[in-house]
Amino acid sequence: MTVGIVGLGLIGGSIGLALRDPSRTILGFDPSPDAVRLAQTRFCIDRPATLEEVAQADIVFVAAPPDATIRVIESLLPHLGPDTVVTDCASVKGDIVAWAESQKLRRFIPGHPMAGHEKTTAAYASAWMFRNARWILTPFAHTQKSAVRALEKVLKEMGATAVITDAGLHDRQVAIVSHLPHVFAAILVQLGDELDRTDVGAGSWKDLTRVGGVDPELWTQILMGNRAEIARALTDVESQVAAFRQALETHDDHALRDILQRARQAKKRQET
Amino acid sequence: MTVGIVGLGLIGGSIGLALRDPSRTILGFDPSPDAVRLAQTRFCIDRPATLEEVAQADIVFVAAPPDATIRVIESLLPHLGPDTVVTDCASVKGDIVAWAESQKLRRFIPGHPMAGHEKTTAAYASAWMFRNARWILTPFAHTQKSAVRALEKVLKEMGATAVITDAGLHDRQVAIVSHLPHVFAAILVQLGDELDRTDVGAGSWKDLTRVGGVDPELWTQILMGNRAEIARALTDVESQVAAFRQALETHDDHALRDILQRARQAKKRQET
Repeated sequence: MTVGIVGLGLIGGSIGLALRDPSRTILGFDPSPDAVRLAQTRFCIDRPATLEEVAQADIVFVAAPPDATIRVIESLLPHLGPDTVVTDCASVKGDIVAWAESQKLRRFIPGHPMAGHEKTTAAYASAWMFRNARWILTPFAHTQKSAVRALEKVLKEMGATAVITDAGLHDRQVAIVSHLPHVFAAILVQLGDELDRTDVGAGSWKDLTRVGGVDPELWTQILMGNRAEIARALTDVESQVAAFRQALETHDDHALRDILQRARQAKKRQET
Repeated sequence: MTVGIVGLGLIGGSIGLALRDPSRTILGFDPSPDAVRLAQTRFCIDRPATLEEVAQADIVFVAAPPDATIRVIESLLPHLGPDTVVTDCASVKGDIVAWAESQKLRRFIPGHPMAGHEKTTAAYASAWMFRNARWILTPFAHTQKSAVRALEKVLKEMGATAVITDAGLHDRQVAIVSHLPHVFAAILVQLGDELDRTDVGAGSWKDLTRVGGVDPELWTQILMGNRAEIARALTDVESQVAAFRQALETHDDHALRDILQRARQAKKRQET
């Protein structure tokens, strides 16, 4: 089996490591020679290849920056093998699905691995990245079932669980479970900057700010790609922040306890 | 050496475990018989004692709920040994320092261990809780230096590092490094409640919501105790949330990248 990877950063590199096996050939492409060299040094790919060659693989993972994803898939299309399955890793799916539907693509399955961390480049890639992670797939009307099955099999070999969902629902979910946490962390670290020291912070500070310094270019693309959903969620955040502030300003123990009680119940439901 | 602990919950229990040693006798008091039994079962204390007896120890840790802290210290005062050092663990220091100053207490040192987690009771106490943690002390004009030195020595034996600071500055710091993260986590879990599922969330969701379900009664006391500082910080949060939302709504890549760039720089400064 031949696996192609376009984009040899943290995610592309980790896909390569996760699928590394004598039974597979991993071909990698990245426009940056440095990224290719790093992916080779870390054994993320068996060898570099041209886009045309990668497009002939049994399965191609496009792990490019979000804004480049559609362009990369377009450049692969004329060269695809007859049975090649293509998937992407962009964290927002609405636009990509709309485009793929308009192209009536049958063997392209939009995807989003729910894994990653705040470090970038294949230097931090890990074969374990996708173990026990959910990997969202958002097939659409034209998608061939056989392509989905082939992709699911490979995801399982990485230790991930495929979750099939609707692109719009996915974008609404990630606005809250992924994008908002990054916005909150960015806000917290900036507030921390007003202090002489933040190293007195205990576990909650460390946890809540871990992703506070993510790559501004990448995350501008990610957040802008889901801007309607995130802006809507931020409106809810604004009312909730105001409710906390008002309870504190008016010294309303009852209101504050109510809010914290609702949060505790929500947390319990989410843990079951 | 005799150590007294008043309040045998997560923090009081952990202090007992951290100081457990044949050279010390650990006496514990809690108004709840269940809490006393649990602390004994988990070997957090050598034996239960009355408040009067605890007050005769060489050092007394008051690990009571924030709202009860001053009342507990008041009830210890008539019974204190001549050299007994008393400290508390409440996470807000302004009110307690103001009260202690008015009483001209010389051997009471307000304290705040920067450690803990979202679980409660001595069932979750750990001898390791304070290893590598900062332990804030806010002595004031009347405080005897010898009392501070005695306390610092014991904190060091728990693996903690004493950090001496001003109570007002401390309260401003913890508003941001501890209280805001809890507010953010409570907001996030409530937003998550609107979704069918949050289990697709990756590391950032898990980290940012870990403390989202903390004890409503305890945290009402904690947040109310620092309400002025937290309300002020929430005003800053509201402007930052609005800035994010506006950048997204107006599709202003430049503004969003600027915000994320500032966050990245803040994070870098905080890591050095």
